[in-house]
Amino acid sequence: MENITLDRCCIHTITTKPWGLSEAVENYAAAGVKGISVWQNATEGTGPHRAGEIIRAAGLEIVSYVRGGFFPHTSSAGRAQAIDHNRKLLEEAAALGAPMIVLVCGASPDQSLEISRDQIREGIAAILPLAEKLGVKLAIEPLHPMYAADRSAINTMAQANDMAEYFKSPYVGVAVDVYHLWWDGDLEKEIARCGANGNLLAYHVCDWKVNTIDLLNDRGLMGEGCIDLKKIRGWVEATGFKGFCEVEIFSNIHWAKDQHLFLSEITEAFVRTV
Amino acid sequence: MENITLDRCCIHTITTKPWGLSEAVENYAAAGVKGISVWQNATEGTGPHRAGEIIRAAGLEIVSYVRGGFFPHTSSAGRAQAIDHNRKLLEEAAALGAPMIVLVCGASPDQSLEISRDQIREGIAAILPLAEKLGVKLAIEPLHPMYAADRSAINTMAQANDMAEYFKSPYVGVAVDVYHLWWDGDLEKEIARCGANGNLLAYHVCDWKVNTIDLLNDRGLMGEGCIDLKKIRGWVEATGFKGFCEVEIFSNIHWAKDQHLFLSEITEAFVRTV
Repeated sequence: MENITLDRCCIHTITTKPWGLSEAVENYAAAGVKGISVWQNATEGTGPHRAGEIIRAAGLEIVSYVRGGFFPHTSSAGRAQAIDHNRKLLEEAAALGAPMIVLVCGASPDQSLEISRDQIREGIAAILPLAEKLGVKLAIEPLHPMYAADRSAINTMAQANDMAEYFKSPYVGVAVDVYHLWWDGDLEKEIARCGANGNLLAYHVCDWKVNTIDLLNDRGLMGEGCIDLKKIRGWVEATGFKGFCEVEIFSNIHWAKDQHLFLSEITEAFVRTV
Repeated sequence: MENITLDRCCIHTITTKPWGLSEAVENYAAAGVKGISVWQNATEGTGPHRAGEIIRAAGLEIVSYVRGGFFPHTSSAGRAQAIDHNRKLLEEAAALGAPMIVLVCGASPDQSLEISRDQIREGIAAILPLAEKLGVKLAIEPLHPMYAADRSAINTMAQANDMAEYFKSPYVGVAVDVYHLWWDGDLEKEIARCGANGNLLAYHVCDWKVNTIDLLNDRGLMGEGCIDLKKIRGWVEATGFKGFCEVEIFSNIHWAKDQHLFLSEITEAFVRTV
């Protein structure tokens, strides 16, 4: 497997949450990072169209818009509202110039995971025509089982593959995030299946800290934890994937430090461990 | 499915951690609970033989001794030490009069999960002759994927079934704990497989709280969370399992309250929700 360079490094704006969009763009570009995945909150000051101009002017490529999904609700009104919201997100992604949105598919603790998956399928079906019209892909991101209560009823690559394959559309695929999936004994096989079906749209990296102290905001910088990142990148690239490796870290610890220092740690860790 | 009564209620001593063994035994028996699973720390004052006498004198049945395992280590000396420790635990279980020990199988963040699973297999193989001689069964407990870094490389029922079936021994089986497994789309199928192979040795209940604030010690009382306990008990009993439903709750919140109150909440929740 080839060594990796910053040419394939993309950073999610949430990773450097204390920075506004312009500050993030300027600093990522200066550090030699080539891609950016834009969280919705990062476009609030400028709107998505202007955000796209700022990013492209700095020479960064927009990799994804984050995040849609959250389709399941016990009420039909709640589900309809979620679909409307996702259509709005697709319009924003198109205005931004993002080629895909990431779907955190959702779950409800008040119904079974099977019902939630049915509602996810219905939600994706409802927004897919607009996605195709706008040319914005939908990347289903399986989430760690510890998020099955209320964030995602899709918790393994196998489930994400099943869902993506159901649609038989080049506009529905899967985002592989090591944080959620590293533990799965079927991961190599399911990544290969995903790639063979043309569904591998995105690859996200961070690390799993052995003593995780917060279920949401204690992700590790690559190298801080126990994930064998090179092994998993090898599986991803064996499918022919040549896209960005997207750094997506939610961390109260890292957000609390100087973000210039953190960005230098990210770029250093990226070339060494990803 | 039949309604459940306290005749099938077993409590793990760790659930009421502030109580010593005699206090736990006396209060469980007075509440109408019929079974007890004994954690090693609970026998420290009396030793296992005397602990068994105290429990039986109160009319409680000893369901399991908790917990063995933690076989994987990067060093062979570490693995040998783990095997010795598990042999000591088996002797203690026999002295206590427990028919099985629960295995939290272990993992090491410094090696792959595949290697850890190989070492778990070797560890079980090493202690199985003594388990058979003493008449103490080994119950492999698959742990939630959020514990894969350092607590267990066996994270699904499928992996636990694979491991148990490898040994083809009535002295190796599986402990099903809803906390670890409720999210798994293959759970019904894998519970059926476990039962069909004669490997379903134990059933543990608690609940998954939607806003879990601690990875280890924030389990919910049955009914506090989102697990469909009756559905899963139905799957377990469909295999012919007629054993105890073991209440195993680690919770800083519940440990902080009056344990008499907590015990009354447990027995009430047991007959209503399990």
